[in-house]
Amino acid sequence: MSGFWGNNIKYSIYGESHGNGIGILIDGLPAGLDLDLDEIHNEMDRRRPGKSSTATSRNEGDNFDILSGYFKNKTTGAPLCILIKNTNTISGDYAEVKNVMRPGHADFTGFVKYDGFNDYRGGGHFSGRITAPLVFAGAVAKQILKAKNIFITAHISSIGNIKDDDFNPLEIQEENIEILKAMEIPTLRQGVAEEMTEEILKCRNDKDSIGGSVECAILNVPVGLGEPFFDSVESVLAHLLFSIPAVKGVEFGTGFKLATMKGSEANDEYYYDGDVVKTYTNNNGGILGGITNGMPVIFKTAIKPTASISKDQRSINILTKEAATLEVRGRHDPCIVPRAVPVIEAVAAMAILELLYNK
Amino acid sequence: MSGFWGNNIKYSIYGESHGNGIGILIDGLPAGLDLDLDEIHNEMDRRRPGKSSTATSRNEGDNFDILSGYFKNKTTGAPLCILIKNTNTISGDYAEVKNVMRPGHADFTGFVKYDGFNDYRGGGHFSGRITAPLVFAGAVAKQILKAKNIFITAHISSIGNIKDDDFNPLEIQEENIEILKAMEIPTLRQGVAEEMTEEILKCRNDKDSIGGSVECAILNVPVGLGEPFFDSVESVLAHLLFSIPAVKGVEFGTGFKLATMKGSEANDEYYYDGDVVKTYTNNNGGILGGITNGMPVIFKTAIKPTASISKDQRSINILTKEAATLEVRGRHDPCIVPRAVPVIEAVAAMAILELLYNK
Amino acid sequence: MSGFWGNNIKYSIYGESHGNGIGILIDGLPAGLDLDLDEIHNEMDRRRPGKSSTATSRNEGDNFDILSGYFKNKTTGAPLCILIKNTNTISGDYAEVKNVMRPGHADFTGFVKYDGFNDYRGGGHFSGRITAPLVFAGAVAKQILKAKNIFITAHISSIGNIKDDDFNPLEIQEENIEILKAMEIPTLRQGVAEEMTEEILKCRNDKDSIGGSVECAILNVPVGLGEPFFDSVESVLAHLLFSIPAVKGVEFGTGFKLATMKGSEANDEYYYDGDVVKTYTNNNGGILGGITNGMPVIFKTAIKPTASISKDQRSINILTKEAATLEVRGRHDPCIVPRAVPVIEAVAAMAILELLYNK
Amino acid sequence: MSGFWGNNIKYSIYGESHGNGIGILIDGLPAGLDLDLDEIHNEMDRRRPGKSSTATSRNEGDNFDILSGYFKNKTTGAPLCILIKNTNTISGDYAEVKNVMRPGHADFTGFVKYDGFNDYRGGGHFSGRITAPLVFAGAVAKQILKAKNIFITAHISSIGNIKDDDFNPLEIQEENIEILKAMEIPTLRQGVAEEMTEEILKCRNDKDSIGGSVECAILNVPVGLGEPFFDSVESVLAHLLFSIPAVKGVEFGTGFKLATMKGSEANDEYYYDGDVVKTYTNNNGGILGGITNGMPVIFKTAIKPTASISKDQRSINILTKEAATLEVRGRHDPCIVPRAVPVIEAVAAMAILELLYNK
Repeated sequence: MSGFWGNNIKYSIYGESHGNGIGILIDGLPAGLDLDLDEIHNEMDRRRPGKSSTATSRNEGDNFDILSGYFKNKTTGAPLCILIKNTNTISGDYAEVKNVMRPGHADFTGFVKYDGFNDYRGGGHFSGRITAPLVFAGAVAKQILKAKNIFITAHISSIGNIKDDDFNPLEIQEENIEILKAMEIPTLRQGVAEEMTEEILKCRNDKDSIGGSVECAILNVPVGLGEPFFDSVESVLAHLLFSIPAVKGVEFGTGFKLATMKGSEANDEYYYDGDVVKTYTNNNGGILGGITNGMPVIFKTAIKPTASISKDQRSINILTKEAATLEVRGRHDPCIVPRAVPVIEAVAAMAILELLYNK
Repeated sequence: MSGFWGNNIKYSIYGESHGNGIGILIDGLPAGLDLDLDEIHNEMDRRRPGKSSTATSRNEGDNFDILSGYFKNKTTGAPLCILIKNTNTISGDYAEVKNVMRPGHADFTGFVKYDGFNDYRGGGHFSGRITAPLVFAGAVAKQILKAKNIFITAHISSIGNIKDDDFNPLEIQEENIEILKAMEIPTLRQGVAEEMTEEILKCRNDKDSIGGSVECAILNVPVGLGEPFFDSVESVLAHLLFSIPAVKGVEFGTGFKLATMKGSEANDEYYYDGDVVKTYTNNNGGILGGITNGMPVIFKTAIKPTASISKDQRSINILTKEAATLEVRGRHDPCIVPRAVPVIEAVAAMAILELLYNK
Repeated sequence: MSGFWGNNIKYSIYGESHGNGIGILIDGLPAGLDLDLDEIHNEMDRRRPGKSSTATSRNEGDNFDILSGYFKNKTTGAPLCILIKNTNTISGDYAEVKNVMRPGHADFTGFVKYDGFNDYRGGGHFSGRITAPLVFAGAVAKQILKAKNIFITAHISSIGNIKDDDFNPLEIQEENIEILKAMEIPTLRQGVAEEMTEEILKCRNDKDSIGGSVECAILNVPVGLGEPFFDSVESVLAHLLFSIPAVKGVEFGTGFKLATMKGSEANDEYYYDGDVVKTYTNNNGGILGGITNGMPVIFKTAIKPTASISKDQRSINILTKEAATLEVRGRHDPCIVPRAVPVIEAVAAMAILELLYNK
Repeated sequence: MSGFWGNNIKYSIYGESHGNGIGILIDGLPAGLDLDLDEIHNEMDRRRPGKSSTATSRNEGDNFDILSGYFKNKTTGAPLCILIKNTNTISGDYAEVKNVMRPGHADFTGFVKYDGFNDYRGGGHFSGRITAPLVFAGAVAKQILKAKNIFITAHISSIGNIKDDDFNPLEIQEENIEILKAMEIPTLRQGVAEEMTEEILKCRNDKDSIGGSVECAILNVPVGLGEPFFDSVESVLAHLLFSIPAVKGVEFGTGFKLATMKGSEANDEYYYDGDVVKTYTNNNGGILGGITNGMPVIFKTAIKPTASISKDQRSINILTKEAATLEVRGRHDPCIVPRAVPVIEAVAAMAILELLYNK
């Protein structure tokens, strides 16, 4: 276990926030795949820090070198390994407070797990920065899925108590995907992006941070992906989603609200739309018995507020074993949710590709 | 992929609801383990159908034969395989309606996935009955965990709109475990079990069903289990939880509510309780950066209402490709939540054991 | 790890020689597969004890019950689990000598590995009897391969110093497969079977045993199976072959003799036979760079003499920690090689199927 | 599948001979491990080309950059990824003959497997050069094993028909390890290295190449490693050994000669040496029932002659689909065996480490 996932395509992630670099090794890609590098850069730019007032000011170009598996602009079938060099690191920020455990962070759990040998600078291997290689991998997966007419899109469902509309589970338009992708605060309802931006900036001014949620939809997934036990579509998606730092909840379709419903309300009744089997509702988020039913796969993800805040917090010093007061410095996102959107799409693409190859 | 899970201990599930039997093969158990078979039977009885007015009337003793890996009352270290014979099957119930897809069920997705060759009787391999072997496996895992002082407990958090209290995330008492285990509707707040029973019986009378949610806590988990990527504690637990039929949402700690909180509210501040690091709150459900922090691991699971209801529903006939009206017969639970409780505990035990052996 | 193998199709073996039964769980078989049960029984009869003077007198029918995954004479797509009940066990043979470690056997290594809790009766989980489920699994795999025109055949290459001819690596005839399959001592050269039988019976009379080797060929394997690292065709085949008890050597094509050859002798030169690429020789056994080249895949397997012999041997008593003299009783094969032939074919079928599904 | 191996420690290999670089990602190393980088460089130098008259003149320093997982001279517990940049590439050698398939090479099988998209330059991902990262990984594994007093050593057992002595299977001296390691042609018997060198140079002059074999011993392996099915010690070692290019045979202990022996000759009888269980002989190469018995683990590996020879060979042009005559140019080893020795030791270290962590 640890930084490895996948069966048909195998992903091995590596790197630390302030080390030489970060990257991912993707093993099992088909040979002869044309990679649209511009599109991959676009996806990585969506996650990239330093481009918005709502995010950290750490400015990383996130340029990647392809070390292997790519020849004459096509995949070779051999493992594809990329390296994103770390450039804009200010490690001095961390050294002085490294023994004071930041609440809500992995400082303490990482310290214990790795017997104090972990690279603590900038969160090391726990850094949200490690999601950049995930976005690369997801961008590759998306290109394979796109060739099979499968599309993935997401929007911010909420920031704090400000809520966007939900996707219409029956009529998500493919044309919306590009629109959402171009938005800094991708949302469905008019005006809500501005409210969310305001809320985030308010939190930044308060030296605080704010959580939120993201809704994601996967369109044109064929019927029959997934397994009854133990690799349900929900299992595979949730496995990856919960490996994104800060994700603390995942629900499919109507999700937790299903717990309050009756069978007669919750069951998605069937009909034939020509030859295609459809349901009148999509409370199950396109998944029945762990297997896709052809309706859009829909899920929501809860993201906790950024743990790094500048407010004083009660903590402990792991060396002196005494209480300590912490004021986190360094450059941090007051709200990680906008940058989480492409990461969520990325792992969704990886999950669906895995399930597709299993079939 | 498919009915297989695990790395250190490998679980292979098998069986169909109305076939010869169901079971599980557990590979990798330590040798010399004393199995408390009475305790295993107790756990299986908690899930067993036919024992309560709130559940299906199908009466299965769920007795198991140990086929291998057990000698002189101890595990041998070789694979442990069990067989639970199917006895109380009434397959006639299903044959007549097998081509009419039950809404909310895996009939349609299973039909497509397995090209129509799946055993449709009683839900076949998709049946909730297949969770009986999970409870066996979980009971074995619980015994190993118990020897390490790790305990798992759960209660029904809600049935429809009737809500129980939450666990106090800081003070879950081990003595409550046995009390909850003995309750037919395990709940914390006085009187809520009666309300829930009433609600379930009302749904049965209405030929309907009702959903609910379960809260589970795992006590005394050592610090340092789990991985930053991709095998976070949340990932491993959610993977298994989402393979339980009807589970549509999983959240850890304060879960989806974290999405509405600020960092200053959500962060669990640290203190030393003697030599032990603790947090004043447990919004993160005992997990930080994907790794246990020593606080109780807490999560909630949303369970959709039983799909099998006797009310008329709109459906399709997969052979004639025409619309059809369905009235599900057979014996079904108006609410699966009470029987889901031991299953949730079981997979939680499997997950924690896996993480423990990874360390 | 332990009794589990496979990625696309997953095999979990279970059982002990003198326990309730033995079997295998096969997960990932396609749905709708017609199993020719007679053909499976034939394969299992080839391995079955008690049918020949050259083998043990333990008579096991090796009838199997299909517990799951099989409905209306076809696979359902759900896990297929079988049980072969143990019937003809005489465990008294073992109890008295259980603390005296049989040389060449797994008594000592199993005792240490499983802390003395292993089922020692009849070799327990180490028994050659556990290969019966392998033959079942291989028979299923063979049927899938046969539908793709891939055939597997083997003959005894040597017993002691008596040698059969090698397969002509360029012209193995499919019609020979059935002939070899029907022979008790499957061999190519006229008269060699009789010599081998005589040698085996001589060893039996001497209270001794004898080793041998088996050559196996796999015909019509498509070009392109296998991986450069780490899952070469040789790796995957050898992995399974070396899990057959008593196998101590595996070589592909010209094998160890290649170590004495020059490049100009060893290289298999290419030509076009119509559209098909062929080689003038097949020193590489149909595998180049770990990948099949379309020529027959050919390998030899060395099998050590049965460890259980009735001659007195020097040993130790693991309890008293003293020297002990051992005279193994019980019913044993003076030569395991003839019964190993179908087992070798079986695992070869499993390996090729795995590689085929990887493609 | 493909360039990935391991369960407890996971190795992902990447790179092509004439691409940007080659490397390996090692996931699951313990944190806090002091890496002796000098010792790792020594191991890599043993495999490095360009340093001897018996090897290719391609001169690669094989310097590696550690990209991640290493901080303050210790492993961090996060994935360790290294990059060996390719420097001394002369790709022009290959372009002109890329469509003529070199006999004995992976040109044809790679072309078919990867649909012609593989990087053909210098053998691409099939190049023996890819074994450099294996030696790195093995050197790391050796350091962990050394701390547990486990040592690995190997010598050239034969080149063509020139044979070295075998290890004395009962008395391999640890002090010999360093002596063998320092020898360009590591051999046991006085004078045999000179004979072998002469034979190799003779083959080079003849524009030919020559095969050979390597014997390897692993000392002080604890009793109880390995599994009865399917992960026997032989299985795990052979799996890795057969992924080394050019390996075509693997045998344990007395190996293929066991096939000619009687049980009374082959069985290794037991005795107590003080408290330690030993055997009078070691025909089983330290492995019984797939599990280590505490005696030295001994195996031999057959290595075919280098496929690249300058003699004219009959081949085909894959584009024109016509016969073609091939004269391989480029820089090649007339005998790969000396450079294979450290690679064999390396994968043996990886295998034993995996088995050790399984225990």
